[in-house]
Amino acid sequence: MYRFWESIKKGSLVIRGMEVTIIGLGLIGGSLAMALRQNGFATHIIGVENNEEHGEQALELGLADEVLPLDEAISKGEMIIIAISVDAARKLLPEILDQINESQTVMDMGSTKAGICSVVENHPNRKNYVAAHPIAGTENTGPKAAINNLFFHKVAIICEKEKSGEQQLALAEQLFRSLFMKLVYMAAKEHDLHAAYVSHLSHISSFTLGLTVLDIEKDEQNIFNLAGSGFASTVRLAKSSPEMWAPIFEQNAEYLSDALDTYIKWLTKFKKLIDSKQKNEVEELMRQANDVGRILDGIELGEK
Amino acid sequence: MYRFWESIKKGSLVIRGMEVTIIGLGLIGGSLAMALRQNGFATHIIGVENNEEHGEQALELGLADEVLPLDEAISKGEMIIIAISVDAARKLLPEILDQINESQTVMDMGSTKAGICSVVENHPNRKNYVAAHPIAGTENTGPKAAINNLFFHKVAIICEKEKSGEQQLALAEQLFRSLFMKLVYMAAKEHDLHAAYVSHLSHISSFTLGLTVLDIEKDEQNIFNLAGSGFASTVRLAKSSPEMWAPIFEQNAEYLSDALDTYIKWLTKFKKLIDSKQKNEVEELMRQANDVGRILDGIELGEK
Repeated sequence: MYRFWESIKKGSLVIRGMEVTIIGLGLIGGSLAMALRQNGFATHIIGVENNEEHGEQALELGLADEVLPLDEAISKGEMIIIAISVDAARKLLPEILDQINESQTVMDMGSTKAGICSVVENHPNRKNYVAAHPIAGTENTGPKAAINNLFFHKVAIICEKEKSGEQQLALAEQLFRSLFMKLVYMAAKEHDLHAAYVSHLSHISSFTLGLTVLDIEKDEQNIFNLAGSGFASTVRLAKSSPEMWAPIFEQNAEYLSDALDTYIKWLTKFKKLIDSKQKNEVEELMRQANDVGRILDGIELGEK
Repeated sequence: MYRFWESIKKGSLVIRGMEVTIIGLGLIGGSLAMALRQNGFATHIIGVENNEEHGEQALELGLADEVLPLDEAISKGEMIIIAISVDAARKLLPEILDQINESQTVMDMGSTKAGICSVVENHPNRKNYVAAHPIAGTENTGPKAAINNLFFHKVAIICEKEKSGEQQLALAEQLFRSLFMKLVYMAAKEHDLHAAYVSHLSHISSFTLGLTVLDIEKDEQNIFNLAGSGFASTVRLAKSSPEMWAPIFEQNAEYLSDALDTYIKWLTKFKKLIDSKQKNEVEELMRQANDVGRILDGIELGEK
């Protein structure tokens, strides 16, 4: 049983003073470390890093109190958070669940959820795992990219909550609430479908826009001269980490393929209308697209 | 002859106290009015507005001292700036050049340049016209979208400068310098080619991303829940004005068609690699795309 369980059951306890292990101290893990230490949820943070330089940076930046080998870090954390690429996480999670005792909780932060949930579906310690995805990030990478308000007022999605134990789920929820995040619950496949359509597709549109401009603009000076804030905003995600995104696209290939088909269909339609000089139809399509502004305004106002 | 000409010839005069007519008091015209009044380049600003409500807003916001009918406004301006859609500008410019005297200068702010330059190529007052394009904007529209630092440290492109008179060109250059803009000179077709590749394509990628997400996400709540700052940034331009952009796409159709072909080619290649689970190749493409980050950093640092 968890040491905070009796208090959580009674009501609105804010958990403080946890021993938290974070595997991967990059943008997500590092930002989480900063925020959980600042709000008191964690008083001791143990980091795990494959990349030695990142481990040293995380210590210098005060993200972790110590960086330990994986097994030792797993044994010491009351809450173990996995913040590495989704393929590495899917491989590591069963091994962690093999090692933990019943008072430990494991949570991952990956952008795809069906793959990782399926590999531990029948694990005897499945109830100790909470599948999560905080909808937060920037195009930057590594411990130096960590920022303490990355998660503030953002959405945290929890998948297959019925497969997590009651206590483990409550602990994960308290962690996200301590960051002032809004909790949303979904089935794993449902999450992956919507993530493909909304988040993953916009990353590919940006990566390929970057490839296109680098391909057809041979003289970079022209990019400097013609690029306004609009270009910068649209192509910003093309700076994102290939190591993190290639496994996401691989695990979410099926839904992404549908999303890309639809995107290419609209681009082809738009191009045909431009080629045939159908200005009014082009204008009408843009008027339809404008409707996304209403949704963006809702997001900016924090109504989501 | 211009009243400032002798001083400009002698050196570094900063022009002050001009009578400026601005046709179209939206995002671009309104922002220009604000900035030119603030820095003293203009002391009296005459506005022209087709949209009565926008005319009233412009007066309330202090963008213009008076809003006058077109002919009267043309007769009064020492400097006449056209900041309306590129099709309306192309129609209006020859009529303005018919009416002006030799001490007046006309400049347009349109995002395409070959079309407008061609209609006045042989006009007897061609030398009184300066073809310009400030690389600045936001996704917002109308007088209320005007912001006084929109042009600060941005690029102003001047096309076919050899066809403008020496004095008229110097006056236009002083206007842009008064806004701390960097001047770049191009042929009109060259401008349109690079604008298609860098600026116009990113608008279409964003408009069609908006259409795609609205098309496949039937439940808006999913967009709210899954949309992070990355989605918002990539789709931001989909809020842009259809009335302004449809004529730009029409006038730049040829180069845009090439740009869209290349974009669709890269998207199709990316999709094939995802479909066939070629993770390493996907990762390699993203690494290529990352290179755009180096260019974006240059833009943010104002090195352009």
